[in-house]
Amino acid sequence: MIPILDMVQGPVRWLAGDGPMGDRILSTRVRLARNIRGTRFVGRALEPELISLRDRVLDLGLSISALPGANAMPVGDLAVMDRQLLLERHLISHDLTGDSAVRGLVLAGDEKVSLMVNEEDHVRIQALAPGFQLEAVFEAAQKVDLELEAHLSFAATPELGYLTACPTNVGTGMRASVLVHLPALVLTQQIKKILAGVNQVGLTVRGFYGEGSEVVGNFFQISNQTTLGLSETETLTKLSRVVNQILEWEDRAQENALRDARLQVEDTVLRALGVLKYSRLLRSEEVVGLLSAVRFGHTLGLRNVPSVSVLNDLLLRCQPAHLQRAAGREMTAEERNAYRAELVQKVLEVRDAPRFDP
Amino acid sequence: MIPILDMVQGPVRWLAGDGPMGDRILSTRVRLARNIRGTRFVGRALEPELISLRDRVLDLGLSISALPGANAMPVGDLAVMDRQLLLERHLISHDLTGDSAVRGLVLAGDEKVSLMVNEEDHVRIQALAPGFQLEAVFEAAQKVDLELEAHLSFAATPELGYLTACPTNVGTGMRASVLVHLPALVLTQQIKKILAGVNQVGLTVRGFYGEGSEVVGNFFQISNQTTLGLSETETLTKLSRVVNQILEWEDRAQENALRDARLQVEDTVLRALGVLKYSRLLRSEEVVGLLSAVRFGHTLGLRNVPSVSVLNDLLLRCQPAHLQRAAGREMTAEERNAYRAELVQKVLEVRDAPRFDP
Repeated sequence: MIPILDMVQGPVRWLAGDGPMGDRILSTRVRLARNIRGTRFVGRALEPELISLRDRVLDLGLSISALPGANAMPVGDLAVMDRQLLLERHLISHDLTGDSAVRGLVLAGDEKVSLMVNEEDHVRIQALAPGFQLEAVFEAAQKVDLELEAHLSFAATPELGYLTACPTNVGTGMRASVLVHLPALVLTQQIKKILAGVNQVGLTVRGFYGEGSEVVGNFFQISNQTTLGLSETETLTKLSRVVNQILEWEDRAQENALRDARLQVEDTVLRALGVLKYSRLLRSEEVVGLLSAVRFGHTLGLRNVPSVSVLNDLLLRCQPAHLQRAAGREMTAEERNAYRAELVQKVLEVRDAPRFDP
Repeated sequence: MIPILDMVQGPVRWLAGDGPMGDRILSTRVRLARNIRGTRFVGRALEPELISLRDRVLDLGLSISALPGANAMPVGDLAVMDRQLLLERHLISHDLTGDSAVRGLVLAGDEKVSLMVNEEDHVRIQALAPGFQLEAVFEAAQKVDLELEAHLSFAATPELGYLTACPTNVGTGMRASVLVHLPALVLTQQIKKILAGVNQVGLTVRGFYGEGSEVVGNFFQISNQTTLGLSETETLTKLSRVVNQILEWEDRAQENALRDARLQVEDTVLRALGVLKYSRLLRSEEVVGLLSAVRFGHTLGLRNVPSVSVLNDLLLRCQPAHLQRAAGREMTAEERNAYRAELVQKVLEVRDAPRFDP
């Protein structure tokens, strides 16, 4: 068994909050979908074939210089909780948390670059970084891609580019995404209009936290929809331009909110901080909303609030698997709510919170 | 102009929180309705007649030893804000805040005993004290009553007792009431059943704060409904017995709440404290609810929460006229909400609250 516990105990590098525009952009991600020429797609291949492919890629992953300090593991060997932990750190996809025996993961020591094996495609290269840095993240993924290509022959045609299991990825096989915080656009109810506009230029925006369609915490993931017809660089340039445009709108919405409803904004931010510091039970989705509100205060120049790094760290560690790993045991939702509140108050160094005698 | 400003700046004695059972009973009140024999009731008399009566009672009030340090004033001479201030301190009734020229007030220096003149009846004697002390409060009112009777002849018959403008007060003319805090009975949804039962034994319970029928802050006023057929002492004994019974039920409900839903109760209490300490805007009714929740924590043994005296003081000073008096100017509701939050945080000595740069 791989010592996931030790490996993923601390904060994640890509959520460190110290990247460019880190107070408004949580992270940038690029993933490249690749398939091995002459091997059937994951959905069609037989298990022995896929296991053999998995082991070959896991071995190869350990030798790649662009994946320093890598660990390689068959995902099926991991405990359910460990898989959940990796999912919460965005290191594997939801598809990869299942019990399938064929799946694998290679993870660089700093968790910034990883390879998923036999998820939807044979190989998915993922790179993550804190803040807004599309080029750097693309380069990190590309380095792994080039090293892999020296050993593997990827399925591609001159007309289409890379071939993938799902037609929506054919071409570059690249999905680049930026995780942005847009509290003022939500507050001023402009977000719907903007989401619609973004869709029209071939990009996708969706709420990041929260089940289903409900947006929690004003976090949005903006990514390219198309992989055909534009080169990687053109795609990144377009995504970058749109993100910058949205940030300008967000800036204007913030100015308007402060001008027209300053006290209400301050009240929302400060109440959120009060609840984080004092509550005894914090639900998973509620804490995302509260952390979002406090982050908004930070962006607006509120003094004496937790730093973006601390807020990001809490966003990560308040998730169910992280809480249970920290507690060293499985917990019911109610137990997690209590443990989550304690964790938040420990991290925020709340010293004066009243307590009942035990 | 009477210097109401100086007189009513500080905390009120009857809300000091140091009375018997002060954590659960805010205050006890007794008022006696009296009318002058041979003078028509207020609703029927002519203005000159009432003004003459008023001046006579105001003069008399200043000489009564049971009203030490008294101030006497025609209420119509007071500024609207001062009348509102007296109403918020429960020193005059809502009826007495109008512009009528005939009304008067005599107020003991400690605000515990007062005379209202030409409200519904010619004279209403009121005594207030912190906590649960029906006998002491009745005695304080009775002393004033006896001294007044030495100079005034009160309308009464041997069969009916004291005659009053409204038939519901005929007899003793006494209304005794106890202001209790019943958070656990509200939480466990038993309060409705109890209110119904109390009505059946000739007592009245009504929510104390909040407009209309909505109960705010779990404060209830329990008082006698009947003034005929029972002596003052019998009435007080009955009221006392019922209040004690209700407090026992409240105790049991608290035990149940702590046994079955301890974390939820703690969470409610602590969140309320967090919002009081951090919010930037506090509405009038909201603050009553929050103070009620924190008081509940105090009753349950929460360490490191504001004392009952502080909570009572805030209950008083967060009211609109008190806020405006403290600010020295009239304020809109929104301005009051901001000022209220500042006041609460000053009183609670919140030092670490984040602030926006001005």
